[in-house]
Amino acid sequence: MNPIDLRSDTVTRPTPAMRAAMAAAEVGDDQYGEDPTTNALQRRCAELLGKEAAIWLPSGTMANQVALRVLTRPGDEVVAARECHAAWHETGGSAANAGVQIVEVGRGGVFDVDELEAAIKPRGLPVFPPTTLVQIENTHNRAGGVVVPQAMVERVCTRARELGLASYLDGARLWNAAIASGRPEAELAAPFDLVGVSFSKGLGAPGGSLLAGPRALITACDRHRRMLGGAMRQNGIFAAAALHALDQHRERLAEDHRNARVLAEALAGCPGVELDLATVQTNIVVFRLAPGAPDAASLVARARERGVLLVAFAARTVRAVTHLDVDAAQTARAATVLGELLAR
Amino acid sequence: MNPIDLRSDTVTRPTPAMRAAMAAAEVGDDQYGEDPTTNALQRRCAELLGKEAAIWLPSGTMANQVALRVLTRPGDEVVAARECHAAWHETGGSAANAGVQIVEVGRGGVFDVDELEAAIKPRGLPVFPPTTLVQIENTHNRAGGVVVPQAMVERVCTRARELGLASYLDGARLWNAAIASGRPEAELAAPFDLVGVSFSKGLGAPGGSLLAGPRALITACDRHRRMLGGAMRQNGIFAAAALHALDQHRERLAEDHRNARVLAEALAGCPGVELDLATVQTNIVVFRLAPGAPDAASLVARARERGVLLVAFAARTVRAVTHLDVDAAQTARAATVLGELLAR
Amino acid sequence: MNPIDLRSDTVTRPTPAMRAAMAAAEVGDDQYGEDPTTNALQRRCAELLGKEAAIWLPSGTMANQVALRVLTRPGDEVVAARECHAAWHETGGSAANAGVQIVEVGRGGVFDVDELEAAIKPRGLPVFPPTTLVQIENTHNRAGGVVVPQAMVERVCTRARELGLASYLDGARLWNAAIASGRPEAELAAPFDLVGVSFSKGLGAPGGSLLAGPRALITACDRHRRMLGGAMRQNGIFAAAALHALDQHRERLAEDHRNARVLAEALAGCPGVELDLATVQTNIVVFRLAPGAPDAASLVARARERGVLLVAFAARTVRAVTHLDVDAAQTARAATVLGELLAR
Amino acid sequence: MNPIDLRSDTVTRPTPAMRAAMAAAEVGDDQYGEDPTTNALQRRCAELLGKEAAIWLPSGTMANQVALRVLTRPGDEVVAARECHAAWHETGGSAANAGVQIVEVGRGGVFDVDELEAAIKPRGLPVFPPTTLVQIENTHNRAGGVVVPQAMVERVCTRARELGLASYLDGARLWNAAIASGRPEAELAAPFDLVGVSFSKGLGAPGGSLLAGPRALITACDRHRRMLGGAMRQNGIFAAAALHALDQHRERLAEDHRNARVLAEALAGCPGVELDLATVQTNIVVFRLAPGAPDAASLVARARERGVLLVAFAARTVRAVTHLDVDAAQTARAATVLGELLAR
Ligand SMILES: [Ca+2]
Ligand SMILES: [Ca+2]
Ligand SMILES: [Ca+2]
Ligand SMILES: [Ca+2]
Ligand SMILES: [Ca+2]
Ligand SMILES: [Ca+2]
Repeated sequence: MNPIDLRSDTVTRPTPAMRAAMAAAEVGDDQYGEDPTTNALQRRCAELLGKEAAIWLPSGTMANQVALRVLTRPGDEVVAARECHAAWHETGGSAANAGVQIVEVGRGGVFDVDELEAAIKPRGLPVFPPTTLVQIENTHNRAGGVVVPQAMVERVCTRARELGLASYLDGARLWNAAIASGRPEAELAAPFDLVGVSFSKGLGAPGGSLLAGPRALITACDRHRRMLGGAMRQNGIFAAAALHALDQHRERLAEDHRNARVLAEALAGCPGVELDLATVQTNIVVFRLAPGAPDAASLVARARERGVLLVAFAARTVRAVTHLDVDAAQTARAATVLGELLAR
Repeated sequence: MNPIDLRSDTVTRPTPAMRAAMAAAEVGDDQYGEDPTTNALQRRCAELLGKEAAIWLPSGTMANQVALRVLTRPGDEVVAARECHAAWHETGGSAANAGVQIVEVGRGGVFDVDELEAAIKPRGLPVFPPTTLVQIENTHNRAGGVVVPQAMVERVCTRARELGLASYLDGARLWNAAIASGRPEAELAAPFDLVGVSFSKGLGAPGGSLLAGPRALITACDRHRRMLGGAMRQNGIFAAAALHALDQHRERLAEDHRNARVLAEALAGCPGVELDLATVQTNIVVFRLAPGAPDAASLVARARERGVLLVAFAARTVRAVTHLDVDAAQTARAATVLGELLAR
Repeated sequence: MNPIDLRSDTVTRPTPAMRAAMAAAEVGDDQYGEDPTTNALQRRCAELLGKEAAIWLPSGTMANQVALRVLTRPGDEVVAARECHAAWHETGGSAANAGVQIVEVGRGGVFDVDELEAAIKPRGLPVFPPTTLVQIENTHNRAGGVVVPQAMVERVCTRARELGLASYLDGARLWNAAIASGRPEAELAAPFDLVGVSFSKGLGAPGGSLLAGPRALITACDRHRRMLGGAMRQNGIFAAAALHALDQHRERLAEDHRNARVLAEALAGCPGVELDLATVQTNIVVFRLAPGAPDAASLVARARERGVLLVAFAARTVRAVTHLDVDAAQTARAATVLGELLAR
Repeated sequence: MNPIDLRSDTVTRPTPAMRAAMAAAEVGDDQYGEDPTTNALQRRCAELLGKEAAIWLPSGTMANQVALRVLTRPGDEVVAARECHAAWHETGGSAANAGVQIVEVGRGGVFDVDELEAAIKPRGLPVFPPTTLVQIENTHNRAGGVVVPQAMVERVCTRARELGLASYLDGARLWNAAIASGRPEAELAAPFDLVGVSFSKGLGAPGGSLLAGPRALITACDRHRRMLGGAMRQNGIFAAAALHALDQHRERLAEDHRNARVLAEALAGCPGVELDLATVQTNIVVFRLAPGAPDAASLVARARERGVLLVAFAARTVRAVTHLDVDAAQTARAATVLGELLAR
């Protein structure tokens, strides 16, 4: 029996229909701008995100790194929510590739105008790094897939603009935020100069991300995509998967959210589990294990023996993610297994 | 009628058989090391290249950039052949990503031990950048796809090792060098610490490259692949194309070489064309246009009108590349068209 | 009347005796290693700090930046106390020059082993930046010149070594820590791989800092000093000032500490001033202004009108520093002025 | 007897009068912009160089590195004369600090418009690094202290401006160029956006360089000076030496030029010496040793035994530099010694 893999929404395998779309994709050399399927994906996403232009990239990490390179200069400071992907999950790339310091603020994956303002070091004093960019991750992965309240997003981006800061939306899971909030992606993206989205997470494509923004900025992104080694060739194969996913897998994210909720409610009732159900808004469940409960590595190991895969996010923190390849029955089964493992 | 596209061997579209292989690929999440097709490709290429381990990457540029990052430190100097890809075609990445200076030496895409030695600035004097890496591009693209004589490769790498330098083979077109020289890839790669190959050029895959070397070095490459944004997910789709290409498209490179030769001989006979036939060893033809002949931009534009696509490499330099999607008849047709355009 | 300048201990002007020492300095070209006074300073400080070798640098910022470059690689993570100089007062250099992320931990300028351990992201997971360096700033400037308890320093450095991390002491004000703790500098520096000290702060020299450590590391520092542009020539002029300061101005730091204490006690009694006297251990007084009190910019501006110079460290935070050019009478005068300005 | 030190014009020791000026310098904290002597030096040099503003830095290397940082972005390409200081004598800093590639062109330390144009890679093709800066070193050290013809400078800078490139003058020895050409420094500097000069070479100060240009650019330089660790404190000590040198040691450079000429003419007559007297225009003599003559290391070692210090610039290349601390009699003595060592 296949394990129930809740490690990440990236583990999904392409469906037969997605494979068929890939096999039939019309392709060309994307480095000459001649891949018709990539071009179609870029046009469609630009429209969907309400931006002028868009560019495909191999990964969400590259989207974030390219965004940093085009929106900052080495020595600049970036304000972002605590435990954001760019500071935690890109193996130090933000400093190594773009030469920037990320200042992590707020809590629970969000921050408001006062926290932005407090994080900006006094201007005009040349000792301090200048803050030139604010970044919001929506949904916020390590905070448990929370959706950043749109009014807060708008306040922060408006203030950023007043202060002369650029703004970037790390929307690797923006699709989930849209479904959960009932707001179209373009509305969620509107306050930002540049927005990144990912096709390989909840949407279930085998790879690929995208940046959208004004055409001049996307042209700059194109150069940095190439400089980092992300310019590929007959990329329509992957673009076809993304287009298929946009058509077929966007609405169904609601199902992942329901499954995550079911799992979270079961976990919240287990002894030794610290889990604020208010944070479970999309497809991610992050919970802490209190003293007395097994630690993260132990729980992950025992669950694996029972056919349930999780990720240890920290010494006593575990993440479970629902997705296309885990249905309601499997979710229920996982909840049962974890309940047994956590029972005193 | 489709144009005869001689701009690059990257423009090939996957064949039906390759598409079928991709559609049927067994996949998993490559960031967890669980993509079986990628793993199979990595094992096979490690063996084929005579190295301990290997890692897939999205592009030849990323292979080169990761190689620089793991084999040097910022401020180091790298000796390479004049007009190498890393200095010319990676939009400044070598300095921006790895912080290194490339010292271009030799001529015609090759350099020997004396040129390596002359390029190493005196040691022990702290003003000079220390040379820590020698890089060979084989075949060498801008020099016309020339194969670096293996005895020269061995001399240079032996001397490099004596001098404490690491060595890297940019073998994006190593497959062509192997066919042209009759030497297996492992023999060509043996003198080097690390070797990069590409699947998206002559082999005709839609994307992807690979680095092979000792396991500890490949582990370091894995981190830098991630840091640059090259770690993807169900990458078996692309790996399947590469495996298919290794099986089906390696031997047939000889055909591309014959076609390139036919084209080159025709061009060499045209007035105003400067082309040393001795440089036409594989699938690339680089020729110069003498004063009196049209310049590169003009020839490229006129050929395009006639259905033949070329690349202007410099003001009076043009490149034509043969590949899987151009057969002998098309090559002959291209030769005729170019002959007519170049006739006085 | 000259203002009472409490902005920083860097504002001191060389005394007549120090000027005489500079004017008489024996000099040579330090880039050839031939400046006898610089050599003498380096030998003396190596001994004083209990290290094998030492190297002069133009500033404490360069000492910190060179330390990061020799002890880390781009993409690494560095654990340091919250609001450390390298993250806050070097205008983004740590990321721009060395490509590292600084993780700020603890509170009040110190952190212990548990906080170090919690800050190190799980190893073996390639998404996380690897932590390779721990840095301690002693005394810690922005925390109010606190001395890090030596037992804590030893615990942290011992644990760092066990974990394979390098350790660096930003000892720009190590001289103050030595006087305040009654421990020799060599004892304070012993747990660290590399230590930086500054001559231009409490010691009163017009410029210059120094790194001390094992000879191989100092040789590496020499190269990076040059690469950053810090290699000078007849540097004995500045080295003579530093030697004079070591002889004449080290013991007298106790006087600055007494003055700071007097000032702090006066401030602590003012309405609206938040100041924990336990943090006032050396020559720095950092205090917060509660709501109702003037904000930092206002207090700084009004004090300037009355001949007392302070620094606004944040919107409601102010720093005052005692030093060689402020005696007990001036300190008392400053306390009176500030008391009047802060009276309700 | 003291050796006759012809290794560099950096070895000069401050004269008694310069020491007196330094000892008497009025100083303040330059990081607060309050060092009156540094301010006076900056104003005077801005005027002397015909620019709006200027900033002191510890070394010529830092001046060059800061110039690269403010005039380029990582990944850019810089065109400069072959064997320029920034590529050869700054231990790899241009790539490590600024992320740029330097393309070395021309010969004999100079290049003209056609060489600039040929070095700029085709625009609009995203594979090529964009050229954004042209740099001229005047006088050019490794080419033998040659003065770049001002008409050529003007042509190159005019064309650079038309092409949208910034321009930088590495004028570490601009004072020599001014004396040799009879043109004021402001005229030599006029074509450039930014100009660097050095006080520690022919002018005989113990250290220090300066950048001059438009005020906004100098403000940006100030930040990068700080980020690299070049912001010092009571810097008026060094500024006083520079001001004294401007007054007392500028006109006398003609004497150094005469001495260099005498030495060069003697050397040119020696067997095995290859020396084009046309290159000996200022205070530097670079000559090659033909096969049959001793190599550079041998000649340098034997001359040292006879009390004459030289530098080996390459395996068979030697540099001798005249300066303030070598008079005509010592020059004649050095010529005699070298003549004896080179006699067959
Ligand atoms: Ca997937
Ligand atoms: Ca292809
Ligand atoms: Ca075909
Ligand atoms: Ca001072
Ligand atoms: Ca000097
Ligand atoms: Ca003298």
